[in-house]
Amino acid sequence: MKQIKAVTISIGDELLSGKTIDSNNAYISQQLNLISIAVTKKLIIGDEKQDIVDALNWGFQEADVITLTGGLGPTHDDITKDVLCEYFKVDLKTYPDILEKLRERFSRRGLKFSDSNISQAEYPENAVLMHNSAGSAQGMHFKHMGKNLFVMPGVPGEMQVITREHVIPILVNMSGSRVEMIDIHSIGMPESTLYEYTKPILDEYVGAKVAYLPKQGMVTIRVSFHSAFENENHERIEEIYSRFQALLPKHIFGRDDENLSSVVGDLLLEKKATVTTAESCTGGLIASLITDTSGSSDYFNTGFVTYANETKSSVLGVSATTLLDHGAVSEETVSEMLSGALEQSGSDYAVAVSGIAGPTGGSKEKPVGTVFIGVADTNRQYIRRFQFGKMRILNKEMSALGALNLLRLFIREQL
Amino acid sequence: MKQIKAVTISIGDELLSGKTIDSNNAYISQQLNLISIAVTKKLIIGDEKQDIVDALNWGFQEADVITLTGGLGPTHDDITKDVLCEYFKVDLKTYPDILEKLRERFSRRGLKFSDSNISQAEYPENAVLMHNSAGSAQGMHFKHMGKNLFVMPGVPGEMQVITREHVIPILVNMSGSRVEMIDIHSIGMPESTLYEYTKPILDEYVGAKVAYLPKQGMVTIRVSFHSAFENENHERIEEIYSRFQALLPKHIFGRDDENLSSVVGDLLLEKKATVTTAESCTGGLIASLITDTSGSSDYFNTGFVTYANETKSSVLGVSATTLLDHGAVSEETVSEMLSGALEQSGSDYAVAVSGIAGPTGGSKEKPVGTVFIGVADTNRQYIRRFQFGKMRILNKEMSALGALNLLRLFIREQL
Repeated sequence: MKQIKAVTISIGDELLSGKTIDSNNAYISQQLNLISIAVTKKLIIGDEKQDIVDALNWGFQEADVITLTGGLGPTHDDITKDVLCEYFKVDLKTYPDILEKLRERFSRRGLKFSDSNISQAEYPENAVLMHNSAGSAQGMHFKHMGKNLFVMPGVPGEMQVITREHVIPILVNMSGSRVEMIDIHSIGMPESTLYEYTKPILDEYVGAKVAYLPKQGMVTIRVSFHSAFENENHERIEEIYSRFQALLPKHIFGRDDENLSSVVGDLLLEKKATVTTAESCTGGLIASLITDTSGSSDYFNTGFVTYANETKSSVLGVSATTLLDHGAVSEETVSEMLSGALEQSGSDYAVAVSGIAGPTGGSKEKPVGTVFIGVADTNRQYIRRFQFGKMRILNKEMSALGALNLLRLFIREQL
Repeated sequence: MKQIKAVTISIGDELLSGKTIDSNNAYISQQLNLISIAVTKKLIIGDEKQDIVDALNWGFQEADVITLTGGLGPTHDDITKDVLCEYFKVDLKTYPDILEKLRERFSRRGLKFSDSNISQAEYPENAVLMHNSAGSAQGMHFKHMGKNLFVMPGVPGEMQVITREHVIPILVNMSGSRVEMIDIHSIGMPESTLYEYTKPILDEYVGAKVAYLPKQGMVTIRVSFHSAFENENHERIEEIYSRFQALLPKHIFGRDDENLSSVVGDLLLEKKATVTTAESCTGGLIASLITDTSGSSDYFNTGFVTYANETKSSVLGVSATTLLDHGAVSEETVSEMLSGALEQSGSDYAVAVSGIAGPTGGSKEKPVGTVFIGVADTNRQYIRRFQFGKMRILNKEMSALGALNLLRLFIREQL
């Protein structure tokens, strides 16, 4: 099978000014790599007609597959569609159904529907639309000189959904190459260490393509195979996942679309149990992550954000002496937060966090990034001290994700 | 003064695979923009000899200033210097002083000095070196066809220090002027509508360059001017911001580095007041956003996440009758959540949210995306019904940000 070459073109003055970092081209590369399409070059240009035309000529000359992101909004600086019409010497075609949906959405939000919005229903007549389930600017698929051009909005969420739901399936059919893959999610282990643990296993599987994708304290191991027929490598993939789980039970928490919130949710549903949260430095983020999962109302009833010492006492009944003797950031305080939260909410499980998010407020014994995370049921508590970094938002995220992972292990009786 | 044009070229297979997001080109753009040099195009390529040669030809043809980052390390896949020698038809020249420093550093760290390290002291003989105070790979400045090529290592810290200490000073001599810019942040108005409101004002300011940058329910309007001298357009920028605030007080909430969390925080500090949160469908996200701002402990003590009806009653004292007669997603319930939260926390202000995040759980009268958001102090309440979309996470974000914006307006007595 001939190696398909691809290039990405990103459009947007905000990318040239450097105020926005273009992460879209990286996402597209990752997705194309998974179906063994190599991105050989990437071009970033502004909302300039001639530059877009030059980029299209360049793309059709360089590659078989060209992706073009950005410049599909309704405002004056978004000119991509007009340029495409000129480039292909076609007219804009209005899609009445799309126009109708747009009017509906505007009226639902009580907003005036203006002329500049009509353009959101107009697309070059030679384009095959790719439905955008996350926004109003549709994706477009063009065939030209036996090559494929995919045009998508620059808003990452919208670009990603169109890439997953349309671009990849179209290209998979084209390349005839079926790819089977699994995303294995881990937390609390650096990429390099994870690599050393997992490489010996992965080396046993001939043809396995492996990528390590790190993201704040978590690393996703993506393993893929090229398959001649459906499910050719299904069993090997399941075997790899089982072996990883057995090797690193505390770190491997899920696969594919699963995340810590959904995994914990499934465990709670299984046990027909409920959980409550008592948060200080995470400031509500744990509860927010739990409720990101649809159906969480079946196992989450109440969460407490006790940011001040007084409310740790008044709301959760943490004793003033404990706060005085050990401080708010201590195992003792977290222990009483757990008990108080269980009592107040009548939940089966509780998770509590107290720490110093920073960037200020650290001491010699408890520097910025010191966080105590506890989990408990009505019989037992487990509390652990973590040391994160100096960056506030990152510390909140690491603490909240760490708390969910401890909760997962506690429910599975692995702590 | 002739506008100096620049292009950036980033080299690295890890950039093409998407494993690494290229932030270097964004940093370089920002630095060049500040001295009014426009980056017109950016190219990202792999560690391929021919691609680097093509990129150099492209760069010298496109621009007056070319930056080239990456491919300067000691490992085999870093070939940039050899390609440069071939390109300029020159030899590598060894710098004894650099070689000496390298040997010293290795012996100091007890490391063996291998041949591959010698290359760190070799550079094309037509290069003017730019000292790298953060690493061992020096930057290189080439003059070619009356144009300037700057070659730097891809390690962000090293690239940044060379850019600041060498590239910018060299270029400042070639370019006179500066860029002055403001980011104006808005919420709750679609890009197209915002455009129609603001365009007439912006048209009055000759030379104003405008971009609209949308992000889930918020749009940032970026206005920039080329200035011949420092603060030439300072007053015009302040005037534009004031006029936008006067025109759309409910939508324009901040500028530049401000966000809704920091803006609300500043208002509360000003008033020496505290706020509490009572959240249902946002599940703790509002509290989490508030505590994203460092110093929030000065005005945020407690937050309640009452996800279940029972805990809306038990924790916040919402009456069972209200829940029965009007449902959890209602103005009446939100009203009692506000009162309960103020009472329980003793805060000066409260914000409360109840809605249907989805994707399931909607009804004909209250479809998915229906959200009631309320704000209150001890004297007064303001509650409004919103209709968002069908996507759960997005609904949570829009609701939380909408709540912070209502809080902002309530504190400013604009509701």
